[in-house]
Amino acid sequence: MNMYEIILKKRNGGKLSEEEIKYFIKGYVDGSIPDYQASALLMAIFFNDLDMEELLNLTNEMRFSGDTVDLSKIEGIKVDKHSTGGVGDKTTLIVAPIAAAAGVPIAKMSGRGLGFTGGTVDKMESIPDFKTTLKPDEFLNQVNNIGIAVIGQSGHITPADKKIYALRDVTATVDKMPLIASSIMSKKLAAGSDAIVLDVKCGKGAFMQNIDDATSLADTMVKIGNLAGRKTVAVITDMNQPLGDAIGNSLEVIESIEVLKGNGPKDIKELSLRLSAIMITLGKKAKDYDEGYEIAKEMISSGKALEKLGQFIKAQGGDEKVLYDYSLFPQPKYEKVLTAKEDGYIYEIDAMGIGMASQKLGAGRRTKEEDIDLAAGIMLNYKVGDKVKKGDVLLTCYSSDEAKLAEGLEEAEKAYVYKDAKPEDNELIKKVID
Amino acid sequence: MNMYEIILKKRNGGKLSEEEIKYFIKGYVDGSIPDYQASALLMAIFFNDLDMEELLNLTNEMRFSGDTVDLSKIEGIKVDKHSTGGVGDKTTLIVAPIAAAAGVPIAKMSGRGLGFTGGTVDKMESIPDFKTTLKPDEFLNQVNNIGIAVIGQSGHITPADKKIYALRDVTATVDKMPLIASSIMSKKLAAGSDAIVLDVKCGKGAFMQNIDDATSLADTMVKIGNLAGRKTVAVITDMNQPLGDAIGNSLEVIESIEVLKGNGPKDIKELSLRLSAIMITLGKKAKDYDEGYEIAKEMISSGKALEKLGQFIKAQGGDEKVLYDYSLFPQPKYEKVLTAKEDGYIYEIDAMGIGMASQKLGAGRRTKEEDIDLAAGIMLNYKVGDKVKKGDVLLTCYSSDEAKLAEGLEEAEKAYVYKDAKPEDNELIKKVID
Repeated sequence: MNMYEIILKKRNGGKLSEEEIKYFIKGYVDGSIPDYQASALLMAIFFNDLDMEELLNLTNEMRFSGDTVDLSKIEGIKVDKHSTGGVGDKTTLIVAPIAAAAGVPIAKMSGRGLGFTGGTVDKMESIPDFKTTLKPDEFLNQVNNIGIAVIGQSGHITPADKKIYALRDVTATVDKMPLIASSIMSKKLAAGSDAIVLDVKCGKGAFMQNIDDATSLADTMVKIGNLAGRKTVAVITDMNQPLGDAIGNSLEVIESIEVLKGNGPKDIKELSLRLSAIMITLGKKAKDYDEGYEIAKEMISSGKALEKLGQFIKAQGGDEKVLYDYSLFPQPKYEKVLTAKEDGYIYEIDAMGIGMASQKLGAGRRTKEEDIDLAAGIMLNYKVGDKVKKGDVLLTCYSSDEAKLAEGLEEAEKAYVYKDAKPEDNELIKKVID
Repeated sequence: MNMYEIILKKRNGGKLSEEEIKYFIKGYVDGSIPDYQASALLMAIFFNDLDMEELLNLTNEMRFSGDTVDLSKIEGIKVDKHSTGGVGDKTTLIVAPIAAAAGVPIAKMSGRGLGFTGGTVDKMESIPDFKTTLKPDEFLNQVNNIGIAVIGQSGHITPADKKIYALRDVTATVDKMPLIASSIMSKKLAAGSDAIVLDVKCGKGAFMQNIDDATSLADTMVKIGNLAGRKTVAVITDMNQPLGDAIGNSLEVIESIEVLKGNGPKDIKELSLRLSAIMITLGKKAKDYDEGYEIAKEMISSGKALEKLGQFIKAQGGDEKVLYDYSLFPQPKYEKVLTAKEDGYIYEIDAMGIGMASQKLGAGRRTKEEDIDLAAGIMLNYKVGDKVKKGDVLLTCYSSDEAKLAEGLEEAEKAYVYKDAKPEDNELIKKVID
């Protein structure tokens, strides 16, 4: 067996055996297979696809390419949640405390953001002194004590995925269903939870631009999870416009706190409740999603979810006073508003455009090494379907750098489309696949 | 412009602009574009092809990626000849002296062999003391003095092709028409001759396995050559069985000498005359191919072509006595015959199988660094369509290494298929495209 023959086989439309996939993953991780052969294989996979058996084998080899997390010392059914990445998507910060408050243990591994979508670790770090570098024992003990912990992704989890993702990122092979599915599911399975809720984003601001592609990805990941013995549910949700009103690290944490106080924008609140309902049900704290939904609402109205977030922040070294004093968050030096250029209905707010604007403001990184501006970001005043008059303030941009402020504002302006007629409602939650 | 966008464009079926192709070739040669991005692009080209304009631009950028040869100091119409690579193909050693004897200046750059096909430089080096490392001035003067010179490929000619070919070779992207065409034609155009004769091999022992693919490659290369102002003619010839009876470096030189003495196998003799006829015509020493053919025959029967080969060998430091004393060639230590396993007609002698057998005997190299056994090889006693009896000697294997002898013999045996009925004649020269 050699890598040349494996590339040739896939290039010619053949099916890779378990041994061939094992050979590729092992060799690529240990460095005996060079990047240029791996990228040729990935491009061949882009064109000739992987069938379900190949995909399962690939996921499995990536899953076991490094350490896996053992959560057996935590009592109860541990439930994980993953989003395929959206602009303004801070649901983890909301659903994790809600589910934990409802008695579902949350032992979550999270990553940093890259490109125009943010990472949960970056967002949490906008809370003064918050740490995600827990030792494995601290992590497990914290979940047993208060029901919730979030740890930064370790370098030894799924090294194959890390190396392959970095290569896909520079060889135009990211947006391919089986490669996305194996990347996400290898990490989720290695992370050790008993059940997984997947939020598959669909729309202009997501990898999956239409409902068919999103359904195919969701179906596949649910199948991979269930075949691995982890109960998996996927929700397909809209990502044509940003989720909620806040985009940027500290701004999103503040919006999350607001949701847990019973306030916050309708879309992020509703999605958080729906995702929490599924998590609570998978964690066997509700008999069905409807009951789970009622419990989730009750966790907010009773203040228990907010209290859980406070415990969680404190346990990880953060200052829980942020819950009641937002001035404790890093503050931006500069801000500037964008006003509506014409009268009419907002027909479109391009999520990717707003994400890129936020990145230009300093809220996102272009390379893994770049520092980010935790205070930078955007607050939207209107969403798609709202009627505005020329001169109305559409959004406010925040940044600690005046030049970046101008760049971000210019980018944000391009995201808007106005029309005379009100656009049709875009369903926020399009499908649940379980 | 960046390489990621170029890969993405081709992956999505787009057409690369002249600037994008220039950016790729320049960046890949200067090392700013890494191998893993180049291999991803090559695989995307494998699937999404290049149109004629892209192919012309690619060929042009590769052609001018390093030095080009200036043959203007040589009088007359310089004619080059190239074969896409076949087993037992020693026609260059025959047609170059014939055309030179007829007055057509031959200023040829040749390569070494890699894999199961041999290179002219290796073959010539089996002549004691023969050198192909001429200085540019020596090379030009020799052509002006005796009408013929062969020089080893310089490291500074088409470096883009060298680097890309080496990458294609390990990423399963060799056998793709536009990549083959641009590789061959960039070198031929950089090598400076005024007219080019291309021998496009077709059959089981060639890249192009069927006549349609071979025609497409031939048409394309003729078009590229003519558009560059070099009169180009392609001949599509059979490569289902080895050409001639001799495979291996010194064995092929001996067979070439025999052809120039008026002897030798029918197929290699006929193909050599036909190729010579075209070269003589393109060099304006005959009014058409028929006249060129008569002149070529006359160069053999008069002994002028053999005499020219002798001058050529002497001029490049070789011992021209080899023409009359084959014992001066390197001699193999071991030899062993292969006998027919059954009565019947030889239905197939797989050219690739015989090529691999010859490589195993030591006549070819697997990596560029490997030394070769100049005396190793195979002499065939029968060709496809011949009737044999069980026990008849089909071929003799030669090697300087006893273990390799056994390996080569075993491989050679697999190349034979016998049937009761005589197979249909396989036309040696299938098409001339001019």
